[in-house]
Amino acid sequence: MKPLALSLGDPAGIGPELICAAWAARDVHGLFPFFATGGRKLLEKAAEARQIDVPIQAIATPAEAMECFHHALPVLAGPDGDYRPGSPDPESAKIALLSLEQATALAVAGDASAIVTGPIAKSLLAEVGFAFPGQTEFVANACGIAAQDAVMLLAGPQLRTVPLTVHCALSEVPGLITQELICRRTRIVHAAMRQDFGLSTPRIAMAALNPHAGENGRMGLEEQHIISPAIATLRAEGIDVTGPHPADSLFAPHARDSYDVAIAMYHDQALVPVKALDFDAGVNMTLGLPIIRTSPDHGTAFGIAGRGQAHAGATIAAIKLAGEAAARRAQAATT
Amino acid sequence: MKPLALSLGDPAGIGPELICAAWAARDVHGLFPFFATGGRKLLEKAAEARQIDVPIQAIATPAEAMECFHHALPVLAGPDGDYRPGSPDPESAKIALLSLEQATALAVAGDASAIVTGPIAKSLLAEVGFAFPGQTEFVANACGIAAQDAVMLLAGPQLRTVPLTVHCALSEVPGLITQELICRRTRIVHAAMRQDFGLSTPRIAMAALNPHAGENGRMGLEEQHIISPAIATLRAEGIDVTGPHPADSLFAPHARDSYDVAIAMYHDQALVPVKALDFDAGVNMTLGLPIIRTSPDHGTAFGIAGRGQAHAGATIAAIKLAGEAAARRAQAATT
Repeated sequence: MKPLALSLGDPAGIGPELICAAWAARDVHGLFPFFATGGRKLLEKAAEARQIDVPIQAIATPAEAMECFHHALPVLAGPDGDYRPGSPDPESAKIALLSLEQATALAVAGDASAIVTGPIAKSLLAEVGFAFPGQTEFVANACGIAAQDAVMLLAGPQLRTVPLTVHCALSEVPGLITQELICRRTRIVHAAMRQDFGLSTPRIAMAALNPHAGENGRMGLEEQHIISPAIATLRAEGIDVTGPHPADSLFAPHARDSYDVAIAMYHDQALVPVKALDFDAGVNMTLGLPIIRTSPDHGTAFGIAGRGQAHAGATIAAIKLAGEAAARRAQAATT
Repeated sequence: MKPLALSLGDPAGIGPELICAAWAARDVHGLFPFFATGGRKLLEKAAEARQIDVPIQAIATPAEAMECFHHALPVLAGPDGDYRPGSPDPESAKIALLSLEQATALAVAGDASAIVTGPIAKSLLAEVGFAFPGQTEFVANACGIAAQDAVMLLAGPQLRTVPLTVHCALSEVPGLITQELICRRTRIVHAAMRQDFGLSTPRIAMAALNPHAGENGRMGLEEQHIISPAIATLRAEGIDVTGPHPADSLFAPHARDSYDVAIAMYHDQALVPVKALDFDAGVNMTLGLPIIRTSPDHGTAFGIAGRGQAHAGATIAAIKLAGEAAARRAQAATT
């Protein structure tokens, strides 16, 4: 199996120090070997600032990471610069971009078994020529997949959710929810749960759009006209989907035991419960791609970068999830 | 101080057994004395079905509840009937309605210091002539308060939230959020936090409507045009309101420490986190009324009524919160 490729994220943010912290915790968490794409000097300084002992080992090929990972953090030759935590600029954005491009290319070429992308600042990246709304769209494009078929999964220890619509105004949500969208994305979720999570018959619960699931049409008709018919279509295909469930009780403890993944209609419906329950360990995973891509579900946190305060839980969880998914794909390929 | 009045809720639901369970747990939880409005036979049978020992004491006036509460569950003469858990009908709905009317009238008259309302089935109540969308509107009307000034608070051990809009389709929400609505209801919340929760300068956090709080207008303009100006108005009045905060991180653990109550824009934005975190102990409290009214935040649960499975946590929490608020009002009245 090939190692995982970690992009640095914006080096002025908390990305580099979290890669160091994750490496330092590799044994405790049983992390699969990974390497960073670039940032040799940056990572050295980030480890120093965090006051953790992280020997860096320069590697020439991803394969070398497998050998040295147990005693040093492997870093592939790539973009690098001075460590200036808290001070993002076009130069730091360029490093973030190059590191992301390198990691993605290696995964697409099959030299890395997954990518774990560090946090970037989208507006800064746009200034240095990044033409995508976010890393998800970039990675999808690199894989030759339409952005609309790259599906965002939020995964925490207590809950997995997929928002069907993501970065749009709330007023646009009802118009965007169609039977086609629901069916298309749910099929992608279903396939990913089987392939990457090892669930042979994943249980999928679908949230309603309206409060009380519309209460028989008294508070909205989308459940009757759109969501229920889409669920019927999916069930006829043999996919175990239930709903539409009133969202307020869908994320309660005993309800969470009844499904493997919840499909939400919009951004906050999915992210509010994940962050309320699993704030420090939320992973963003992109489903529907030929490669595996995970990411810690937090931003660059420029304000606390380099101070040793950033929590490594989400980065560790993202590496763990990527490694598990990679192991499942590798096993499936040999059987 | 006067005792609390508990309405039975629909007697075919879990209301009666939870009153019994709460009385049985009165010492463990330090509950302030309460009495039920009606249901003497019903409560006796409900306790039997739940296999708990609850002596019932008929009382002629609320004041008698203070004396007997420590050794028996006081029940005021009122509606009663046969205990038929799981089988709601017009008769059970009538009992629910009469018990609610009686409890409310006693609180309005000052003979009870608060009411804790049991769960009802709205559609059944409507069939026996109940002309209100829910108990909240009924209680507001009994107090001579416009329904729009009766504000729903959801309170759990980890979180208090107020949804600014409640029972409407999601597509209607953006059109309903106005500066006037935000200011009017936030003032009511502020006053209630001072009066009933003993917070001299309550910290109020207001959620955004759109994901990422609209991200500078890229995903909706309501934050810039409506919510932020309303917050400025409220702050100029000396109310400690912050926001609009992106909703997804507002309910994360460390964010929750930064406020006493969160104001949400719509039903699920408020109820998803409360139920995800505090499912078995959520209390619905109506703010803005001259009387104190709380309620367990769950339904009649006809399916499990009479089987001893219903969790009493929310009823106990509702009684506790009503008692605390009543004590604060009583103390304020004497100083």
